[in-house]
Amino acid sequence: MEHRMLTLEDVHDAAVRLAGVVHRTPVVRSTALDAATGHEVFIKAESWQRTGSFKFRGAFNLMSQLTAEQRASGVCTVSAGNHAQAVALAAKLLGIRAMILMPADAPPTKRAATESYGAQVETYDRYALPQVEAGVAFAERTGMTFVSAYDDSRIAAGAATAALELWEEAGPLDVLVAPIGGGGGMAGWGTVARALAPGSTVLGVESVMSGVTRDSLRAGVRQTVTLQPHLADGQMLSTPGDLTFAVMRNVVDDVLLVSDEQIVEALRFLFDRLKVVAEPSGAIATAAVLAGLVPGRARRVGVLLSGGNCGWARFAELMSRRD
Amino acid sequence: MEHRMLTLEDVHDAAVRLAGVVHRTPVVRSTALDAATGHEVFIKAESWQRTGSFKFRGAFNLMSQLTAEQRASGVCTVSAGNHAQAVALAAKLLGIRAMILMPADAPPTKRAATESYGAQVETYDRYALPQVEAGVAFAERTGMTFVSAYDDSRIAAGAATAALELWEEAGPLDVLVAPIGGGGGMAGWGTVARALAPGSTVLGVESVMSGVTRDSLRAGVRQTVTLQPHLADGQMLSTPGDLTFAVMRNVVDDVLLVSDEQIVEALRFLFDRLKVVAEPSGAIATAAVLAGLVPGRARRVGVLLSGGNCGWARFAELMSRRD
Repeated sequence: MEHRMLTLEDVHDAAVRLAGVVHRTPVVRSTALDAATGHEVFIKAESWQRTGSFKFRGAFNLMSQLTAEQRASGVCTVSAGNHAQAVALAAKLLGIRAMILMPADAPPTKRAATESYGAQVETYDRYALPQVEAGVAFAERTGMTFVSAYDDSRIAAGAATAALELWEEAGPLDVLVAPIGGGGGMAGWGTVARALAPGSTVLGVESVMSGVTRDSLRAGVRQTVTLQPHLADGQMLSTPGDLTFAVMRNVVDDVLLVSDEQIVEALRFLFDRLKVVAEPSGAIATAAVLAGLVPGRARRVGVLLSGGNCGWARFAELMSRRD
Repeated sequence: MEHRMLTLEDVHDAAVRLAGVVHRTPVVRSTALDAATGHEVFIKAESWQRTGSFKFRGAFNLMSQLTAEQRASGVCTVSAGNHAQAVALAAKLLGIRAMILMPADAPPTKRAATESYGAQVETYDRYALPQVEAGVAFAERTGMTFVSAYDDSRIAAGAATAALELWEEAGPLDVLVAPIGGGGGMAGWGTVARALAPGSTVLGVESVMSGVTRDSLRAGVRQTVTLQPHLADGQMLSTPGDLTFAVMRNVVDDVLLVSDEQIVEALRFLFDRLKVVAEPSGAIATAAVLAGLVPGRARRVGVLLSGGNCGWARFAELMSRRD
């Protein structure tokens, strides 16, 4: 694990590495969303990123910097799905062998997609074993280079390029609202916000069933929670990352909490009004904005929509939930 | 009804009228779709057009050419949904009063959206009365200027601007595949294809439950069928348009027929792999391509995806169909 703090220069360097490899995803506007929230909302829609989420940015940025020796030994990782696909595609593009450890209850579409890129998948019980420990044991067993899903400045710098593009496209923003899982995305996006718009408000979003990063930031030290199932499966971690927590302490102003019902409401709104496919974890920041949790009025609000790997069967099941 | 034939110049004139008013929608590529079909596929995704379908292009092009007297009397139309929304928004933007006649079984989301633009909605039974007759009676009763959903060269010229953009974005195409309803879209898109790529193949797509345009083109004269319910609700017409049929005879090479099951398969593929929201009528051309109905191999295929006004509840219901 690398512990150097993150700078805007790291993000610019990552953008150079990723040029021509990642998709420059659209920033989506909607008069319906502006009317519903009272803000001017700009959604950076990483559903259309390669592999269907922002995770590919960090994985490729990290893996393209591995030494020849590290490449030769192959890479391994542990991930609920989107990071798994990201590592699998980056490995394929870079000609590296990859083995992925996934929670047994990860969405089947994410496992299938990971395997379709040529990676080998094994599973574990995430309610019995913390992700970090599972990953460490897996790396020791395989002898491969471990690619962290979040706790590495190269992952955060790659992810951060999405925020760089959001600012380039949207212009000045008063608020940035983004999902927090392990914090690799949030650390990067917050770093960009602080550098480009020092006066802006940076808000992370977690499930109300977790809130571990909010509690950790308030306590000033990392807390650990017992995992409880909720819809934002991509953000189900018992504790924030080590490096990412250190960065988030400097760049995150507050953390908003949303319910499963608010996430489903956001999925419906995104589908009907914006024609955007999102997964629950991906829609969590939009859910916070739509639920009116962003303080103030008539502000220019940037939203990170982190991914769209939902799968039609799961989407239909989510839609059938009672309001 | 205007009967002048359609030229590329009409389409260029329409593009000037629509500049800054319509969205320039993305042309979507997918390695998964290319792999599944063996072609290079370019999807013009009008789900992201204003009002959620290509229909806004034609409605605005026509209505922006009305005389002051016609505007003062207001406009009326008959439509299953997308043209209704298109006329409603165009009327709002142009400051014209609008009344819309919709089939009683049109999707509720389309009615709600039409009313949200300030138009007044009435309903009729489309299985008892052909759309054209219903429209004529409605126009006489209201005394308003009737805006055809398809059978007018100004509608076709406006719609055709989507094909112009597709060619600009995709470059040379060997095949154009597009949905046929009344033919306002198909007449326009086919005219553009014939003008820009005289050697290209132009394929329309209808539901296998209708096939009225295919039968009409083969007979050389318009046929009439009894309407049967199928998923492509936006294309449920008993006979092609008068003007549009005359144009389609010159510009359409063949018509492909797809089943409801093939449409659902396309909706699933678009959602999971391309993260594109489509409605059944909108996805019908993609369904034909995905089902392998486009002849030849490794061709550059342009596809018109005409709209995305499905609504989450209907989408979930469609997903629950047995394969």
